[in-house]
Amino acid sequence: MRDFLPADKTRRERVLAVIRERYRAHGFDEIETPVLEEYGRLHAGIGGDNEKLAFNILKRGLDADAVRAAADGPALDVAALADLGLRYDLTVPLARFYATHRAALPSVFRSIQIAPVWRAERPQKGRYRQFVQCDIDIIGDASARAEAELIVASLDALDALGLEGGSIRINDRRLLDAMLDVFGFAAEERPGVLITIDKLDKIGPTGVAAELRERGATAAAVDAFEQFLAGVAGGEDRPFGEDQIRASLPEGVPDEIIAHLVGLGETVAAARGGGVETPLVFDPFLVRGMGYYTGTIFELAHPSVGYSLGGGGRYDGMIGRFLGQDVAAVGFSIGFERIVDLLAASDAADAASVVLVHDRDVPVSELLAHKAAFVASGARVRLEQRTKNLKGLLERASNDGYTAFALLPAGATPGEVEVKPLG
Amino acid sequence: MRDFLPADKTRRERVLAVIRERYRAHGFDEIETPVLEEYGRLHAGIGGDNEKLAFNILKRGLDADAVRAAADGPALDVAALADLGLRYDLTVPLARFYATHRAALPSVFRSIQIAPVWRAERPQKGRYRQFVQCDIDIIGDASARAEAELIVASLDALDALGLEGGSIRINDRRLLDAMLDVFGFAAEERPGVLITIDKLDKIGPTGVAAELRERGATAAAVDAFEQFLAGVAGGEDRPFGEDQIRASLPEGVPDEIIAHLVGLGETVAAARGGGVETPLVFDPFLVRGMGYYTGTIFELAHPSVGYSLGGGGRYDGMIGRFLGQDVAAVGFSIGFERIVDLLAASDAADAASVVLVHDRDVPVSELLAHKAAFVASGARVRLEQRTKNLKGLLERASNDGYTAFALLPAGATPGEVEVKPLG
Repeated sequence: MRDFLPADKTRRERVLAVIRERYRAHGFDEIETPVLEEYGRLHAGIGGDNEKLAFNILKRGLDADAVRAAADGPALDVAALADLGLRYDLTVPLARFYATHRAALPSVFRSIQIAPVWRAERPQKGRYRQFVQCDIDIIGDASARAEAELIVASLDALDALGLEGGSIRINDRRLLDAMLDVFGFAAEERPGVLITIDKLDKIGPTGVAAELRERGATAAAVDAFEQFLAGVAGGEDRPFGEDQIRASLPEGVPDEIIAHLVGLGETVAAARGGGVETPLVFDPFLVRGMGYYTGTIFELAHPSVGYSLGGGGRYDGMIGRFLGQDVAAVGFSIGFERIVDLLAASDAADAASVVLVHDRDVPVSELLAHKAAFVASGARVRLEQRTKNLKGLLERASNDGYTAFALLPAGATPGEVEVKPLG
Repeated sequence: MRDFLPADKTRRERVLAVIRERYRAHGFDEIETPVLEEYGRLHAGIGGDNEKLAFNILKRGLDADAVRAAADGPALDVAALADLGLRYDLTVPLARFYATHRAALPSVFRSIQIAPVWRAERPQKGRYRQFVQCDIDIIGDASARAEAELIVASLDALDALGLEGGSIRINDRRLLDAMLDVFGFAAEERPGVLITIDKLDKIGPTGVAAELRERGATAAAVDAFEQFLAGVAGGEDRPFGEDQIRASLPEGVPDEIIAHLVGLGETVAAARGGGVETPLVFDPFLVRGMGYYTGTIFELAHPSVGYSLGGGGRYDGMIGRFLGQDVAAVGFSIGFERIVDLLAASDAADAASVVLVHDRDVPVSELLAHKAAFVASGARVRLEQRTKNLKGLLERASNDGYTAFALLPAGATPGEVEVKPLG
């Protein structure tokens, strides 16, 4: 977990403001849920591996007997010690929120959630135990329209941040399933097979085939899959259209899933305008980790980095678990921490910001009158008592985003001091 | 703990943006700390009664033996079960932050913290277990200048929110102490006496005297204090100047504390401009609950409500506890939740926002092209499929802050549909 000093915090808030403004422009509505959810809800099986990483809140008013009882069973009874936990994602809270407030929301609800989540990971580079997620979700629309709105809004937010040229890698969980079926993998071995396929970028087709054999997956299926991989896999991007999609898949996958993807591509193209290349890439081996995805899945890529800047997908089954009926849902999560790191070099200074440097003997009421005059003119103002090292003082102010300074002699009239540019 | 639906969340973010912008203009710099602090730091005795209200985080990887050991002592050993906790205020984290990052901060550091805190209170009206605090603090300046900057910035933020006419009730902890000394209260009974004096607004001078006698406070001191109270106490506001301050105090309190307050009043007056009445009120019976205050204390009042909208004071001793040396510090906390409630009636709609109502048969790619054209023009845009009750649909959109709508027939050209005002 990290402290953020002023320069970092300012940059974070600027990026959040841009994302929030763009998502609002696209008709999404921001909501907020408490950071604490009930222990049972966080451990209901829909959080995947993240459930094990939840920070749990000790019950208030526990007595020694209750604590001893929690320890005396065959395994430690955490649920007897903890009744709440910090959320590990924004999807479980959204499902709970929607089930609670459905009647007060539009029939197609487009939500924004910009908020921290917590995971008790072992500290390692690039992984934080508290980090911000920026999620948009559309609940109540099972069509490609919802997926297109998410993709277009996400690309627009990226553009607005100065990260033009983003693209979206797309697949469909049902295509993966159909593909594994075509090759002859048994239903019960498919989750493990997908975990291995997810490593294709790292270990290549040969590595994938070797790991599948190690897993003891059906040998004939592995052979068929290896042969297919040799034909289509590779680092090259696939343009997005019916022919390209078909060419990247084995014979026998259902036409309607391909048609859905083709329609999605046309919709995104229409929304982005005729002159712009459609920023979609079909990736038949894109898996996405979470088990709850049920259809289209996507990842946000940018030419400047090798890793994904966000992703999401359709998860039609999950919201319904809290409601007792099926509800269509699809979400897109921007990797805020990665984007902030990427933008670190592009800081902007405040438009009008002045450091007022004064001698020790200027009366305090004069100082505040000077400051008030600058604040009233629309500037950001910091008072600094002059030190022997004036140059050092001004350099620090410049680093803090100030663009101008003025030296305040005693007796000057507020609003009539000379302002000079910094640096 | 509360969920915030779109209308509430929008209002909250608007208010936060105004406060953040005004505080930045006054030269304060925003920082952020993790919501979790170490258990020991949260229970070091500087959090007052709030320490008992901390939510504690169960240690990860506890085994049954360790849990049993925590229960087997004379009292339950919470520190053996919990290693972290949710912060109950922003002052303890600020002290830790400053001690850690002092070398990277200006010698006079003006901080903004806008963030949630948590207290395990029993649910009651107007008390929340998660709520947002907006704190500004100045560290490293022991003069009245720091206090004046906090007061002027806070009043400016209130003005910018449309709550003009705010005022500040002021006292000094050292004056309270000197006053109790003059009346003859013993040093060890003063903390209890202050708790009773803090109820003056509620129970009046007679009630205060009665409760002091019940407490068993020195009888002669209570008699002298009661007589003094009868002369000066009352609901009327005291204008702020040396004569008025002296007239509100018993003989024998130190001149230098009065001089400090008079200087503060002059500084605030100079900063607010000559024509404006100084919005300060001297209140010799203002106590403020926290034990860590060491000098000037203040509360933010507004004519529209009977309760305080914020407050703060000087706490020169606390930051030093983490550093091993004295550091001057003074802070002001705006009661964000109260201010949001106060502003609830004054919602503003989004400037340009359009609901695009379409029939079921308009192709999805056309819909997204229409939406893109409006987004590109700078509007906020929501797509809605037409329902039988068009009037109801438009009313709901108006409640959600939309100001215009357009009906989309199939085949219309993006950018060339008729927009009508809503409502």
